[in-house]
Amino acid sequence: MKAWQYMGERKPIQLNDIPEPVPGPTQVIIDVKAAGLCHSDVMYMEVGDQAMPFLPMTQGHENAGVITALGAEVTGFKVGDVVGVCSSGVQAPLGMFTPGGFADKLAADYRDLARVPEGLDLSLAALATDAGMTSYHAMIKVGGAAKGMKVGVIGFGGLGQIGARAAVLAGAEVHVAEMKEAAWDNAREVGAVSCVKDAAEWVANPRAGGDFDLIVDYAGFDTTQKAINAVKRGGKVVQVGLGNPTFTVATNTILGKKLEGSLGGTVEDIEEVFYLMLRGEIRPGYEEIGFDEIDKGLERLKNNEVLGRLVARFGG
Amino acid sequence: MKAWQYMGERKPIQLNDIPEPVPGPTQVIIDVKAAGLCHSDVMYMEVGDQAMPFLPMTQGHENAGVITALGAEVTGFKVGDVVGVCSSGVQAPLGMFTPGGFADKLAADYRDLARVPEGLDLSLAALATDAGMTSYHAMIKVGGAAKGMKVGVIGFGGLGQIGARAAVLAGAEVHVAEMKEAAWDNAREVGAVSCVKDAAEWVANPRAGGDFDLIVDYAGFDTTQKAINAVKRGGKVVQVGLGNPTFTVATNTILGKKLEGSLGGTVEDIEEVFYLMLRGEIRPGYEEIGFDEIDKGLERLKNNEVLGRLVARFGG
Repeated sequence: MKAWQYMGERKPIQLNDIPEPVPGPTQVIIDVKAAGLCHSDVMYMEVGDQAMPFLPMTQGHENAGVITALGAEVTGFKVGDVVGVCSSGVQAPLGMFTPGGFADKLAADYRDLARVPEGLDLSLAALATDAGMTSYHAMIKVGGAAKGMKVGVIGFGGLGQIGARAAVLAGAEVHVAEMKEAAWDNAREVGAVSCVKDAAEWVANPRAGGDFDLIVDYAGFDTTQKAINAVKRGGKVVQVGLGNPTFTVATNTILGKKLEGSLGGTVEDIEEVFYLMLRGEIRPGYEEIGFDEIDKGLERLKNNEVLGRLVARFGG
Repeated sequence: MKAWQYMGERKPIQLNDIPEPVPGPTQVIIDVKAAGLCHSDVMYMEVGDQAMPFLPMTQGHENAGVITALGAEVTGFKVGDVVGVCSSGVQAPLGMFTPGGFADKLAADYRDLARVPEGLDLSLAALATDAGMTSYHAMIKVGGAAKGMKVGVIGFGGLGQIGARAAVLAGAEVHVAEMKEAAWDNAREVGAVSCVKDAAEWVANPRAGGDFDLIVDYAGFDTTQKAINAVKRGGKVVQVGLGNPTFTVATNTILGKKLEGSLGGTVEDIEEVFYLMLRGEIRPGYEEIGFDEIDKGLERLKNNEVLGRLVARFGG
């Protein structure tokens, strides 16, 4: 089968012919139909062999497809089931430590499978498994966004657009901070009541503090302190974005406030996002490309030339 | 009456004769019997007029005494009741914005009063209202220390000693990080199972992470990152100490972990500490001084010449 593989530092990724995977006892084999391209893929390539120590490594961790084979201990799934694969489940990280989905076939642990409801487009299903899960988990499960809350979303990109929409659906009053004013129309469309360029604008007097109940920071570019300033006493900041390698906070400003880092999510999160997508309540922007364009797609991501998300669709 | 008052920046505090306070509708007047001296008092003096904008200001926010008068709307208390005053309640901060307890009498809101049980020494009662409340609230209410948890305490000073003991009483396995080895015997006496000089020693490989469920940082001297490294995924760091004005954290290390700043506590916390003290289960080290020695006591605190806590006892 064909697979896009990372071959080592300072080498271009390569489309190789490799043997098809055989399922382990708790694994299924999936005929990959859609694979999302993620900024993390680009970041892993930049980090290099430390991120992907087993060479060559098939990349891709945002996948949906159809089960074609089952290991002996798999229960609850059968050949033909349409599934998405949770990228933060029991299996070692897909596309980093175990082969990912930029390939015709993918081996995944059955405990990491989310059932795709009938009628859901598989590009959306793929997208739900990482961008969807991560943003939704941070906003709803870690942040606890709910009716009556004043919620801030920092960064209205691939994740922020889903997180913001999830918060609106939960009944929160949502405010967006996004540098690119081109994204503001989309933010208002999903239900944001205001947009600013910089989260610092959310609080007139940082010493007095702001009145947000919750802020989810999908950016992480010098935004943590601004978010802490803008939440009220008892409020929470959820950190998702890793824009800058470190952040610095005035120690006294954290008193009475919560900061929690959110990473990944669960199969349950993915299935909740599936149903919100199926009902048309979450409609993230994305662009489909061909399987043979994955290398060029990653290059475009690296050069920040992508709006929304790229999803590679597989032939047949 | 006599009151120790802050007179403005770069001036010594002064023992003045001032009129006795009159209770507001929701206030009681307390005959102060014991007043704890706190590092915060020294810090407010160093910050100066920004911390204490209304001059002159009677300092002191760790008080216990006997009610001598009641405002018209006070319910649930009577003249003669022995009480401690919560320093983070409904009244504007005592000893900063409203007159504190380095005085013969103190006006306090009745909603900020904790009932001192019969038989509890009033020096301990005073101590419970700030050092006790703050350390206990951070460890038990914010940190959730409980049976079976592995808990770290950074800084075994006035607050850390109470926080560590509270965690031991809650059934946790407690480890202490304290630079001053002279304090280690005390730490073991309250039930700590290990002592190290530096919290960095708690984790062999920071990239792999540690196995603590909870760490409460009563120091804040470049300790936040070390604490985050040492807690496991899902674990929590509670920040109390403000040793350094800022802290810096590697963004990816916060993912899956919680950081929460704890400030003050509640009347309920104080009353819980009262009962633990009454039963002899929390026995913090302290030294009693006279009312006329408060200026010298603050000087000793400033010069880091105090072990445990200083409590001023009032004549009569």
